[in-house]
Parts: sequence; structure tokens; C-alpha cells
Amino acid sequence: MYMTDPFIHPINVTWGDCDPARIAYTARLPWFALDAINAWWEAHFNGDGWYQLELDRNIGTPFVNLTMDFRSPVTPRHKLLCETYPTRLGDRSITFGMKARQDGRLCFEGSFTCVFTIADQFKSQSAPNELRRVIEPLIRAE
Amino acid sequence: MYMTDPFIHPINVTWGDCDPARIAYTARLPWFALDAINAWWEAHFNGDGWYQLELDRNIGTPFVNLTMDFRSPVTPRHKLLCETYPTRLGDRSITFGMKARQDGRLCFEGSFTCVFTIADQFKSQSAPNELRRVIEPLIRAE
Amino acid sequence: MYMTDPFIHPINVTWGDCDPARIAYTARLPWFALDAINAWWEAHFNGDGWYQLELDRNIGTPFVNLTMDFRSPVTPRHKLLCETYPTRLGDRSITFGMKARQDGRLCFEGSFTCVFTIADQFKSQSAPNELRRVIEPLIRAE
Amino acid sequence: MYMTDPFIHPINVTWGDCDPARIAYTARLPWFALDAINAWWEAHFNGDGWYQLELDRNIGTPFVNLTMDFRSPVTPRHKLLCETYPTRLGDRSITFGMKARQDGRLCFEGSFTCVFTIADQFKSQSAPNELRRVIEPLIRAE
Repeated sequence: MYMTDPFIHPINVTWGDCDPARIAYTARLPWFALDAINAWWEAHFNGDGWYQLELDRNIGTPFVNLTMDFRSPVTPRHKLLCETYPTRLGDRSITFGMKARQDGRLCFEGSFTCVFTIADQFKSQSAPNELRRVIEPLIRAE
Repeated sequence: MYMTDPFIHPINVTWGDCDPARIAYTARLPWFALDAINAWWEAHFNGDGWYQLELDRNIGTPFVNLTMDFRSPVTPRHKLLCETYPTRLGDRSITFGMKARQDGRLCFEGSFTCVFTIADQFKSQSAPNELRRVIEPLIRAE
Repeated sequence: MYMTDPFIHPINVTWGDCDPARIAYTARLPWFALDAINAWWEAHFNGDGWYQLELDRNIGTPFVNLTMDFRSPVTPRHKLLCETYPTRLGDRSITFGMKARQDGRLCFEGSFTCVFTIADQFKSQSAPNELRRVIEPLIRAE
Repeated sequence: MYMTDPFIHPINVTWGDCDPARIAYTARLPWFALDAINAWWEAHFNGDGWYQLELDRNIGTPFVNLTMDFRSPVTPRHKLLCETYPTRLGDRSITFGMKARQDGRLCFEGSFTCVFTIADQFKSQSAPNELRRVIEPLIRAE
């Protein structure tokens, strides 16, 4: 898997993502954002996204907060490039920042906080070392 | 739960279900159809939909075929009334028919076949008696 | 249409909304929240949701911000009751608050800000009087 | 855009596409199939998918039928490779075939029929020549 620096996840926005205003329906944008965060995990952990983290590593990362500002409409005219990066790694939580652009224009930005859990117990835990090691050097400011 | 005869599941189609042609996006229609089938299970088995069938009764009903004919566009102007009924109960499978209407007009019709499984083994099984008992008297022709 | 006070939009969470952790997938929750806000418009404007506001009244209300805190998992075990209410009506924007509960437990709460546009020009406008009149008396604190 | 022969559209199936049975929810599969058909249009018409066909060329291709057989579960373990091809071009309709595979295994196959419309009139038309020219040599048997 080729990894860009910064990490950017491209999304092919289509007809089916758009509402009658001819722009992507607002409720599709958090879905795109989560796709980008899942892709970030895949890119930095040998292809392991949430599915493999949960089932193979027994690590869950459920969301506790999500904040998004919509700056400009998203359309199928260009790829949606979701720049995705961790902004904070707490003892038990991780926060991601995101700037999503089309054709150089900022479409939305957001902040997303997840906690770490022991997946099969749905119980909070400290960030596992196998993750912390990789994440820490990637933390950056907004 | 009030049960109509025939069983009809109403869907509130909204802005977010529509594409730029101002009608429900085609890929939303199988989703609506499955919502109606899940509601059929809930209505006939004490509120148990697929979630409870799987987790509480260990019965899975995965789909093996889906066929839909789209007759007329679906819009947010009227409720989408999905008439849903079993048309065949085989030893190991069940087929549902559906006619979905808005304002008296047929929007789509379809046929949906599922098999019965032991959920935690993902293994085929004969239709469990607790289901067969209830389903058999409800079978009707298209 | 029967209107509760406060306004509460019920959502039937199903199997298809859940991920392998057996709870509603996070990206479904903003979709549910928007369904509730659309239902709020329908309930207070003679059945007119975003579709009718745009096409019949030429009024758009695109989102500029969305903030959600996830307090407790959402499952198909109970209806998801989305209490929805305007918290602020500015000259050109409206903010909605939401508290979504299952079985008395708070699952998520959120804040959602939209601006008013002349729909066919995608141009910002002041809150039209036909809306302001109805909304103003409904504003409440969080 | 690089075009494979046969045309294959890859889909990154993720956690959010899966239901509690840990496989992609059935109603996601028609969505994936439509994504692949839209990608087929993009690949053969200079990047024009349904959005551009409708808005820039005034050509609609609404679906009139969809038939899918589900052979094997779809999971996030492998890319879903959707082989997509036209099987019939009638005067006013086009039929696509699809075989979707993961790791060499057939997951689903389907047939999808669309009609051609003058988009802004929502009126049936014969297949426009600008499309027929490109499509005809690509027709193949199942």
C-alpha cells in the first residue's frame, strides 16, 4: 500500500451520493469521513481497518465525539481528497483531524474522537502499545 | 403492534433518499425492500426482526436471490407502502413477494429468497418449526 | 400528523444499521439525526420536509456544522427516540439541538446548524418570515 | 483512467458495510453493484458517470430491473472485484451483467437493465448514438 505524507484518502463521489440539490447529501459526509479514518488505520497497520482490529486484535475504537464544519459543497466533479491525521493521543482516546478538499477547495473539516476498548468486553482500555508506537510519531497540530 | 392484512410496511421517503433526478436513488430501493421484510418478521414474531432472530434464536435467514422490477419513480410526495408476503416456504428456504405503492400507483415489485441457517455456525438448516408454524398459513400467490 | 411536545421522532433501528459490534454503525447516527430534523420540518410545516421546502417553496437549509456526542450504544432492542428542537434562530441560520434516547437512556446528543438559502440560486438569505413565525416560539435552551 | 479488459471495478468493503453476522449487509450489495455500473460509464465515457450523463449530456439511464444471486458472503478481508459488462443493447434499453469476486471466489452475480431517457423530460428515448457507438463493440455473452 502506497502511503502519502500527509495521508490522503480519495473518495469517488457519485450520482447516488447526491441529493436533489445536486451535491452530496450531508449525511453522506460523516460516512465519507469514517471511510477515510478506517483507511488511515489500514494504511498504518498493514491493511488492518476496524474489521481486523476488532476481530483479529480484539481492539475496538468506538467514537465518542464527531464535529464537522461544512465549508463548500461536495460534488461528483472531482475526487474528494480526505487528508486525515491524528491530532492527539490520550491515555484512553485518540482524536483525528480531517480536511477534505475537491480541486484544491476545502469542502469540510472535522475532528473525531475515539476511545480504545477491549472489543469482546466492550470495556475501555489504555491505548495498546502496538498502536501507540505507530501513532505517536504521526501526531500533528491542526 | 398493529398488524394489517395484508401486511404493509410504510416508509417515509425523504430528501436524503433522492438523487439529482429528484426521485429515490435506485440503490435505496432494495434497502427499503429489506426494511419491509425485516418489519414483516417483527410483525409476525413478537417484535423479533433479523437482529433478534440471530442473537436470541440463533436463526439466520441470509438472502440468496433478489429480483426487482421498477415500475414508477419513488418520491417523498407520498408514503411508500410496501405490501410484503411469503409466496413459498421450501424445506430450507423462504421466498417473499413485495408490491410497493405510492398514492395507489405501483412503484416496484420484487421477489426475495432467503435460506435458513444455524446462525452461529453459518450452516444451512431446515425451516425451524417455530417459524414454519407461523409462516405456512400466510403463504399466498403473487 | 400528531405532534408531541416536545417533538420526538422515533427511529426503528434494525439489523442492517448495525456493524459487527452489534450496535448501530457510527456513520448511521448522523443519518438518523438528519432524518429526525427533516421530520421536525414535516411536523411543523404541514408535512413539508427538505424536499418540499426546496422544490415547492424554493428554500434551502444546508448544514454548516454538526456536532455529536455519543454517550451509549444504539441497538435494535428499542426504538431510538430523537427529541429535536431549535435552540437558536439567527438572522440567516438556525441551530437544532437533539437528545436521542433508547429505553430512557441517553444514546447521543448533538447540535446542528443550517443556513437559509434561496434554493435555485444556492445563495444565502435571511430566515423567510413564513418559517420565522413558526420557529420563534419553539426556541428553547439546551 | 486505466481500463482493464474485462472491466473490473474494485470495492473496498469495510467494517461499516458489515452487519452483526460480520459480512456485508445484503442491501449494501446492490449499492456496490450500482457503484460498479457507474464506474463502467466513467471508464468508457471520459470520466462521465450518471451525474455527468444527466447534467452535461441530458441522458438518463434509470433502472427497470435488477436481479442478483448471492453465492458467497462478502467480507472486508479482500477487495470486492466487480466485473461489469453490457450483455445486450436494445433500441431503448441496455442490460449489464456482473460477476463480483473476492479472492477468486464468486460472491454474487447479477443482471441490471436500464432504459434511456431524455433526462430533463424524464421521457424514454432510443439509445443515443454517442453511447451506442462505444457500447456495441463491448457487448458480450454472460
